[in-house]
Order: sequence, then C-alpha cells, then structure tokens
Amino acid sequence: MTTARDLHLWSDGPNSLAPGPLNAITDVEGVRVGHHTLSGNGLATGVTAVLPHGDDPFRLKVRAAVEIINGFGKSAGLVQVAELGTIETPLLLTNTFGVSACTEALVRRAIAANPAIGRETSTVNAVVLECNDGAISDIQALAVTPQHADQALDAAASGPVAQGAVGAGTGMTAFGFKAGIGTASRKMRIGGRDHMLGALVLANFGRAGDLVLPDGRRPDPRGPAAPEKGSVIVLLATDLPLSDRQLQRVTRRAGAGLARLGAFWGHGSGDIALGFTTADPVAHDGPDFQSVARIADRHIDIPFRAATEATQEAVLNALCASPATAGRSGRSFPSLADWAEANRP
Amino acid sequence: MTTARDLHLWSDGPNSLAPGPLNAITDVEGVRVGHHTLSGNGLATGVTAVLPHGDDPFRLKVRAAVEIINGFGKSAGLVQVAELGTIETPLLLTNTFGVSACTEALVRRAIAANPAIGRETSTVNAVVLECNDGAISDIQALAVTPQHADQALDAAASGPVAQGAVGAGTGMTAFGFKAGIGTASRKMRIGGRDHMLGALVLANFGRAGDLVLPDGRRPDPRGPAAPEKGSVIVLLATDLPLSDRQLQRVTRRAGAGLARLGAFWGHGSGDIALGFTTADPVAHDGPDFQSVARIADRHIDIPFRAATEATQEAVLNALCASPATAGRSGRSFPSLADWAEANRP
Amino acid sequence: MTTARDLHLWSDGPNSLAPGPLNAITDVEGVRVGHHTLSGNGLATGVTAVLPHGDDPFRLKVRAAVEIINGFGKSAGLVQVAELGTIETPLLLTNTFGVSACTEALVRRAIAANPAIGRETSTVNAVVLECNDGAISDIQALAVTPQHADQALDAAASGPVAQGAVGAGTGMTAFGFKAGIGTASRKMRIGGRDHMLGALVLANFGRAGDLVLPDGRRPDPRGPAAPEKGSVIVLLATDLPLSDRQLQRVTRRAGAGLARLGAFWGHGSGDIALGFTTADPVAHDGPDFQSVARIADRHIDIPFRAATEATQEAVLNALCASPATAGRSGRSFPSLADWAEANRP
Amino acid sequence: MTTARDLHLWSDGPNSLAPGPLNAITDVEGVRVGHHTLSGNGLATGVTAVLPHGDDPFRLKVRAAVEIINGFGKSAGLVQVAELGTIETPLLLTNTFGVSACTEALVRRAIAANPAIGRETSTVNAVVLECNDGAISDIQALAVTPQHADQALDAAASGPVAQGAVGAGTGMTAFGFKAGIGTASRKMRIGGRDHMLGALVLANFGRAGDLVLPDGRRPDPRGPAAPEKGSVIVLLATDLPLSDRQLQRVTRRAGAGLARLGAFWGHGSGDIALGFTTADPVAHDGPDFQSVARIADRHIDIPFRAATEATQEAVLNALCASPATAGRSGRSFPSLADWAEANRP
Repeated sequence: MTTARDLHLWSDGPNSLAPGPLNAITDVEGVRVGHHTLSGNGLATGVTAVLPHGDDPFRLKVRAAVEIINGFGKSAGLVQVAELGTIETPLLLTNTFGVSACTEALVRRAIAANPAIGRETSTVNAVVLECNDGAISDIQALAVTPQHADQALDAAASGPVAQGAVGAGTGMTAFGFKAGIGTASRKMRIGGRDHMLGALVLANFGRAGDLVLPDGRRPDPRGPAAPEKGSVIVLLATDLPLSDRQLQRVTRRAGAGLARLGAFWGHGSGDIALGFTTADPVAHDGPDFQSVARIADRHIDIPFRAATEATQEAVLNALCASPATAGRSGRSFPSLADWAEANRP
Repeated sequence: MTTARDLHLWSDGPNSLAPGPLNAITDVEGVRVGHHTLSGNGLATGVTAVLPHGDDPFRLKVRAAVEIINGFGKSAGLVQVAELGTIETPLLLTNTFGVSACTEALVRRAIAANPAIGRETSTVNAVVLECNDGAISDIQALAVTPQHADQALDAAASGPVAQGAVGAGTGMTAFGFKAGIGTASRKMRIGGRDHMLGALVLANFGRAGDLVLPDGRRPDPRGPAAPEKGSVIVLLATDLPLSDRQLQRVTRRAGAGLARLGAFWGHGSGDIALGFTTADPVAHDGPDFQSVARIADRHIDIPFRAATEATQEAVLNALCASPATAGRSGRSFPSLADWAEANRP
Repeated sequence: MTTARDLHLWSDGPNSLAPGPLNAITDVEGVRVGHHTLSGNGLATGVTAVLPHGDDPFRLKVRAAVEIINGFGKSAGLVQVAELGTIETPLLLTNTFGVSACTEALVRRAIAANPAIGRETSTVNAVVLECNDGAISDIQALAVTPQHADQALDAAASGPVAQGAVGAGTGMTAFGFKAGIGTASRKMRIGGRDHMLGALVLANFGRAGDLVLPDGRRPDPRGPAAPEKGSVIVLLATDLPLSDRQLQRVTRRAGAGLARLGAFWGHGSGDIALGFTTADPVAHDGPDFQSVARIADRHIDIPFRAATEATQEAVLNALCASPATAGRSGRSFPSLADWAEANRP
Repeated sequence: MTTARDLHLWSDGPNSLAPGPLNAITDVEGVRVGHHTLSGNGLATGVTAVLPHGDDPFRLKVRAAVEIINGFGKSAGLVQVAELGTIETPLLLTNTFGVSACTEALVRRAIAANPAIGRETSTVNAVVLECNDGAISDIQALAVTPQHADQALDAAASGPVAQGAVGAGTGMTAFGFKAGIGTASRKMRIGGRDHMLGALVLANFGRAGDLVLPDGRRPDPRGPAAPEKGSVIVLLATDLPLSDRQLQRVTRRAGAGLARLGAFWGHGSGDIALGFTTADPVAHDGPDFQSVARIADRHIDIPFRAATEATQEAVLNALCASPATAGRSGRSFPSLADWAEANRP
C-alpha cells in the first residue's frame, strides 16, 4: 500500500507535527477499523467500521462532536450526536443507499446486547456516514445488507489500516482520480504528556483540476470534468482530554484540512466531520457526577493543527493507495500514484 | 373524532388568529395526508405520510427549514434539509426503528420515477421523522416495512385528517395520556391577501403532571410518572411567500407552541420541527435565475403567532382524539377527552 | 417590593421546584447585583451589573453559554462567549445606545487590573446586554456614560435584589405594562446534594394582550397596542456542575419560560439568554489540564425545569414590582400589580 | 502599491476565475471604501469604511450573512445580522478597542438621518469589525474616536483601494509579516450574465512559518514566533442574486480561502466573514411582498470558488502591499514583498 510519504507528496512546514507510529487512526489506543468489500456484478462498494474502544459503546459512550462542513449528505444519527455529544454505536461508513441497511445492523446489534433498549431505556442512535459511489458502482442496486455491515464490524482490528479501494472506499473518487479510504495521525505533546490524534477519511470529493499538493503542484487528470457530486467523511479520533466545546472546535478544523487540498466544500459534496475522544467516556449508568478533563485553551492550537494536517494527509493517502479504475458510462479514474511516478519533481 | 374545541379546551386570547375551514394542515392547498396503521401481535404503530403537493417532489422541490428544538432523535434527512432548504421526497412519520424501512421506500420510489438518481444526477434525500412508541408497541420487532410506507403514501388525500391513535400516532403518548397525530391551522391576512399555515404533530412527549391547558388547568393522570422519554415532531406547512431565512424563523416558533403546553423540551425528547412553504417551489432543472417572494418583516409576527398557536392546538387535538389505551408492562394511558368530561369547569 | 407570589399570580404544578431563600439570582453563592438609575430630563434608564463571583473575572473566568432566541439585538461580546464558553468581565445590562459606554467602562476596568491586556496577552471581551427603553426614556440622548456603568458595578452586592423600575429596568415595558428588572430562583436536589439556579431578567417584550398568567388569565392593558419592539435579556446563574454542552442546553430553556408567558419571540424582540455556572471556573493562567464536573444527563431535566420556571417567574416579578408609569408621546403603562388587585380571582 | 500578481506570487489553477478590472471589492458596482489612518505617539491604527451603495443604508438595507469561522472576536452587530440577514449601516473596521467609538459614530449618523430611530421605529444595528493591532500600536490608548470613524466614512470612494498599512490595517500583522488591508475580486459568468464578487480583508492572523504560497513555498520570517493572537475579518461583496441561504453558504467559503494560506483558524484568532449582495435590497418601508432572485444551486460552485479565491488573494495582497515595520517591545515585522524579491523562484 503506497502512501503520500512513500511518493514524496507530503512535505512538512516549520511548525508541522510528526505522525504516530502507524500514521493511522489506530495510533489512538483502542481504536479499531474493519472493512467489508463488495465487488462484481457492477458493484464496487462496501462498508468500513470504526470502533472507538473494545467495550459495548452503548454501555460506555464516547464523547463526540459533529461538524457539518457542507450538508449535502444523508448520514444517519448526526442530529443526536450534535445534541448530546456522545456516540453509542460503532461508526459505519458506506455508500449513500447503504445507510438504511447499516443502521438496521447497528440497531439489531445494540438490542441483542442491551434488551432494555426502546423499552425500559431509550432507543439507540446508530451513526452511519456515506458518500455516493455511483460513478463506479451500481448504487441503485441497494446492494449493501445488514450482514455486510456485520462483517465489517467483525473484521475490526487495531494495527495498520488497509487504505484506498477497500470497504466503503471501494467505489469512491476524488479530484478526478480514484480514491477511497485514507488515514493519518499526529503526535501531540502537551503538558509533558504525549497524546495522539488520528484521521480516517472516506474521500469522494473535489473537481478534477482543483487538487493542490503540498508542494503547490496541481495534478489534473482531465478526463470528463463532471461537476463535483461527491462527498467526504472525516473521522477524527483522539485520546486528548477535551471539553465538549473543545472537541467541537477541534473537529471543525477538518474543514481546513480539506481546503488545503484545493477544495472549497462544493455544493454537491456532503462534507461532514465527526470527532471523538476516548478520554473520559460516559457510562450509560454512570455516577450522578463525573469529572471530565480539559486542556488549557492556550494549548488548543496543537490539536487544531493536528486535525488539519491529519485530514489533509489522510486524503492524500486515500488517493495514493488507490489504483486506476474504470467507472460506469465509460469514464476512467487514474491513480495519483501513477501521476506521481510520471511527474517526479 | 373529538377536538380540543369540541371539549372547550381551547380559548382564544385578544390577538389570536382564526383557524382554517378544516383546522388542519390540509387547509394549505395541495397538502395531502395519509396513514397506515399496524396493530395486533403486540404492535400499535404505523406510518403517516405528508405530501406537499401533487407533483413529483424530486422534480419540484419545496422550500423547507428544520429546527432542532431538542435533538434526542433519529430522524433521517435533516442535515441536507438544513443545508439546502428544500425537501425532495414526501415526509414520512413512524416509530424510531421504522426509519430505515421508510427511508428505503422513499428511495425506491424516487429512483423508479427518476432513473438518473445516483447516476447522472445526485442521490435523493429521504426525510423520515420518528418518535419512540415503545411504551405501547413492541418496537424491537422492527415491524414497519417499506410496503407499509407505500400504503401510507398511497392513502394520502386532501380534506379532513384522521387524528389521534392512527398511522404513526397509533402507539404514542404525551403528558401521561394517550396521544398521537394532531393537526390545526391558522388563517393569516397579510397585504390584502389570505394565507394559511397548518401544523401536523406526532405527539409523544411531556411528563405526567406538566400539561397546562389554555385556561391554566393542569390535567394530571398520575399513574406511574416515568421520566419523559418521548419526542414530538411538528410539521408546519404554509402557502405564504417567505424567504429561506423567514421560513427558518417561522419554523423555530413551533418550540414556543410546545412550551405553552407546559413542556420544557425535555432531555430525552426528540423535539423537531420541519416547516415548508408551497410558495415558489424550486424545480430540479429550473431556470438559471428564479424569483422568490418574501413578505416584509414587519408582518412576520403573524406567521410567528400562527405557528405557535397551530402547534399548541395540534398537540391538544392529538390528546383529545385519542382513546384510553393499555400500554406494555401493565401501564395504562388515559384519555384527555375523558378527563375533560369529568372535569368540566 | 411586590412579587408575583405576593399577588398570588404564581401557582405551582405537580412537578414544580421550590425557590431559594431569596427567590433571586443572588441565591447562587457569590453572585452579586448592582443598579444605577438615571432619571429626570426625559430620561428613565440606567445600568444593572451582575457579577459572578468576588474575584477578578478576567483572571478567573466563569463558564458560560449564550442562546440567541431571537437575535434582533445589539448586545456586545456574545460571539466570543459562544466560541470560548467563558465570560471574563462582569455582565452589564443597559439601554440599546448605552452599550458602547458600558463596553468602554468594562475594558478600562479590565486594563487597569490587568496591564498586559492587548499587549502580552489577548484583549478582553466585554459583555453588555441591552433592551430599547425608547417608549419611556429619551434614548437618543445617549445618556449612559462609563461612569454610570462604574457606579452600577460598585453598587453590586449579594442579598435581596431590587426589582422593577430600577437600573437598566427603569424605562422598560412588557405586554403593555410597565416592567423592568425581575429575578427568581429554584432549588435543585441532585445526587444527594442541593444546588441552586437563579434568573435575572431585563423584561421589555411582549405585545399587549398576549400575556398569559399561570392560572390562564390574560391581563390586557389595552391602550395603544403598538407592535412589539422590545426585547428581553435572561441571565441564568447556577452552581451546578455542568459540561459546556449541558450548560448550553440549560440556557436554551429560557426560551420555554418566555413562551409560557404568551410570548412567541416576536420579530422585533432581541430575546437573548446567557447562562453561567460558578462551578469549576477557568483561571486565565490555569494548569495544563483541569477537571470539570458534569452531572449525569439523566438528571438534566431538573435544571431544564428550573431554568424554565425561574425565567417565567422572574418576568412576572419584573411586572409586579413596577409601578404605573407615563411614557413618551402620551402613552401610559399601567402596573400589573394594580390589575391583580382589581381582578382578584 | 505592490500586489501578489506583481510579485508573481499568485498562480491560477485549471479552474480558476479571472479577477475584475480593479481586482478589488470596488469592482462590485456601488461599493465604496474609505480609510482614516492614525499614527505617531505610539499609534499605528485607524478605521476603514466599506459602504454597500450610495443611499442611506438604514432606508435601503442590503442583504447580508455572517460566518463565524472562529469566534475569538469583539465585533459589534453580528447577532442581528445573523438573525435578520440585513445590514443597515456602513461597515467599519478598526482595532479591538475602537469598536465602541465606531459604533457611536454609526448610531449618531443614523439618528441624524432618521430621527425616528429608537422612537417611532426600532433602533439601529451598527456593524463594526475588529482585529487587535497591539503588536505595533498602543491599543490601550483607546485612541480611535467617533470623529475618526466619520473621516473614514467621508473618505469612502469607488475606484482603486489603498491596501496594506492603511486605515484599520495600519498596525496589523500576519504570519509574522507586516500586513493590513487587502482586496481582490473575481468575475463570474452565470446564465449568460456577468457578475462580480469582491473581497476586502483586514489581515492580522497566522503564526510565523505557517504561510503557504500558491506555489507551495512557505515564507518564514522567523523572528520571535509568538503564538497567534491575531484575527482576520473578511468582507465579501457581490452583485449576484442569491437567496439568504445561498449568501450564507457563499460567505462560509471565506474560511476555505484562509485555510489555503496555511491557517487552521487558530484559537486566539477572531476569524469572521461578512458577505453581502447588492442585489434586491430591502427597503425599510418596502412593499408587503417583494421578489428576490436566486441562482439555480447547480451554479453555486462558481460563487463558492470566487469567494475562496478572492479571500486567499486579498490576504496575499495585504501582505505584499505592506512595508517592513517595527513593532512594540522590540519586535519587527518584515515585508513579504522583500522576501519575494530575495527569493525569486
């Protein structure tokens, strides 16, 4: 799997932060990622699962924030995350018309583990995020089923993350190139302690000709430059102690990372970021009062920078890890890795 | 069907507006409502459909606004409505775990009518709103299917609206009483022209003992006063020409109507309002420039008042139209109409 | 000073909370209130100061949230409170055109106490909230000076709070009656501990004929019923440990309290709530990491209810404490206390 | 006056838009800009005025939107713009502690022209935006007076705009370089008609070492790299017919322009954008119903791109037009133009 650093497409600035050991969202302890890929029969789609920790997320909710950068999207569960600031299921990524099936899978799993759901206690808020892979895959087939979601969930593991045309990323494109799943991470040293922030993106956005590399070059695949109809989902994970408000502000910086790539958050693009911290989770039946740590605001530019850089690099990795692919209707989507080989500086 | 006015539970103030001829959301020309009810086998649930006009809503989008009064809810499609300000499917109401099935039904219908969806054009944003009817119905059965949604859609008609324990309202409760679907409307005379605003609510909120009637009385069913875990969906329809911003501000006033009933938008209650205007719809393939009319802001207190009053009265109607009902786990939910008969002023 | 309870205009529901010993915002330990009143020469205006604690608020910032219920208002400092969630000056209330003078007073005080402001450290965010008292006072005189603000600040004290036509409330009106400053409080027992929430309002809103008393009566002064052009500022103080998000949600409930009075958050009314908690303040030069306590969300309906009730009662108190007053242009504003005496149930 | 294009620091991408004839906000017909500069006695500050048209803005309000990118700022009037979507005074830019004086000037002017303000009609909402120039100027002097604001207003003119260290920009810095006022514009061809969008920025943000030029180079002044405490104000003007919602979405893209420069919307930076359209203004005493034109959303990526590019280039112009300057406390701020001369590619 080729990354932007392998291809020398990443360059640090004077104030840049260093990546974690895997340069992946799984550098945040406890975070696990699983993919399930569907292909053949006109399909190039799938499901990607991100789990915040190893326990039942309904019993041990993780604090989270949602930032709607451009809301042309059909993700499920975001209204409640915005209100309560917690997630209580794993996060699933899939194609636009797979959201219902993935939601059903998460609801059934939660009920199986917690029979009081919807009866003695409230219902469960399934979070599923999506992009439209219809340029490559037959999205009208509504091919994703709850079983596919279960397989992605069962495959979740820590360690290196498969990137590019895999899981939910199988049929995605960005800036006219083939894209998909990408990830990156940043180390943050605050108050004498090391912390980690990781990003995982489902990259399916950006008009051909708009991509700007960190060195200023603008790779232009110039095939049929259709108007942007894609989307991008950015998941940010950290172990940094943040207040709800701080987490919201950190999550918002995903939008800066996208803009650095040349995006302007296009009309038809559902650009949505969801950030969570594994610090100080909230138990479903927790104590009457609970302590939650926050960093001093004078340090918050560090996670702001980390979120921006990790988002930017994760998208580049999604591009670099994806091979050239034929789309529907005779379109083709080249590989940024091939472009980089042919255009060495 | 008994209404709040039948039971003398409504009283006008000096500045109150008069209702339309049906005192229903269908007083707004073109709006149609359909119900499909599921009962038996522990089920008391269903689907209610609200259609803004008689054309394909994907081809002729209606301008809309969403107000999240308290976001403990799992409705689908709201993020995109908030961004773009349009709805492009009928609106479906159902129980919390019926959202996926209803979404699938709307997506399949839209694709059948518009084969370019997800391919040559963007995908379609299905809007489905929900409350948890688990106090009466076996919500874990996930009993609602896309076919049930289709039946509600096919039943949609103009004219009087069935209220109370019908469609999505079948298993709903409010303030410790049986509740469900309610509707009301207000006439607005502005600039020499008559306009209409209607509300339709799915009422499933409010703790026992908190209900305040317009005359100040507080009906208290005092059974097992469980903490509020319900929700309320408020749909507002109007034919008034409003700018996007004006429509947003009008929709926000649904929260005032709920508060007048004694609610404080409880933590566990997904209190969500969606307003739309049939004025100046937006065609999918419309002209490069389009004129949209707005009222002068000096008149906007009239639709503000209409939205507040119609919301308040629609909830009272939902309560008055619902008969006493046995719930799960031995609970029972009395009828406000019975209370009113027994407590004549 | 007459209150709503003195006049039997308040009535509890089955779930109502009890007030604190003073039924005032000063029931929250450390909170102090001061007034400075200007009258004569066509003026009926002033300044009211609310201080969260006895220390320098720039050094020891208090966590806060802002809720814009209807943003037809000219208050200062709200954008930064919304972003950072803290206040770092006392809160000043005044008339619309007194905001600049009050801002200048707060800035000069903060610089005098902290000479690094704007140089070695950031500038200071002065928070000043306002209503338009032009129906009674000569607002075009721009009569409020920084010295008047200083006098209100210097007068701040704990203990009972003067209400009605005093300080910033001197020239205010509501629902066609004379109004002004009002306050109320609620006790909250959570997790075996007693907590307090207090409200202080600057009430200058509501159209004549729209006021609804808790017993359902609608006092109608029926003089010249001009369209609503007022505003209302609601300050909420608590000692309850709340996360930033919880504090935001509690503050939002001020809008429910206003709606219960018959308001629908009129177009021309700047209806703004600012809530703060004295729990876990944030020092300007605090530690790298700080613990902040939050309550379990299952208890949050208690402060929701407290905020709603305290807001509602504080407005009634503002009305009950204000004597009948002549306005400009021959208008007169009767006293709700007089109405209550003449209309005993 | 040197611009980024003069220094070959701007480079177009394949999809870039062309600038207007002046490459300035005054390319939008009717828009006028005026500066008043204060210097000497430790002062390097001033006021910049932007007028949307030649009429009284209180009588003929211009539709506007506010986007709070990062709300560490003390600007005046934004709450009401966000609610009503109009501006009714000229826009003034100044230093943080000059906001009160500029507000007073705008209020006095509006009253002089409209004696009913605050009496028969509502008060007036003055809009003043600010950055902290304390690194160069003696901000504690509170040196800006209402008379200075009047002088900037009286100087307003169409035609070329003075940039760099002038007016409100006199004491501003960005990315460790001297900065200030900058402007740029973009032509937009939509539906066979030409339209214009212009940006004017007050640039005072960005940490040394973070600036990224369009060609990927990162000019690093490397003096004492203090943490970012600046801010940036972005004013966007257009003659494009946009709905309120469309204008909001266009204004949000200012944040993308800032991010492309290497900013991540730092904690201490008040990053605020205000956009307005001169199309379809709203008269104070306008008709009961008014038509407002909107573009089809399928074209909205064009103004999105224009807003992003114009913001980015306006900041570069602010940097390029500003000469090296000595700051307070022995700091110095070099000129990006000097850097560009010394570092020709």
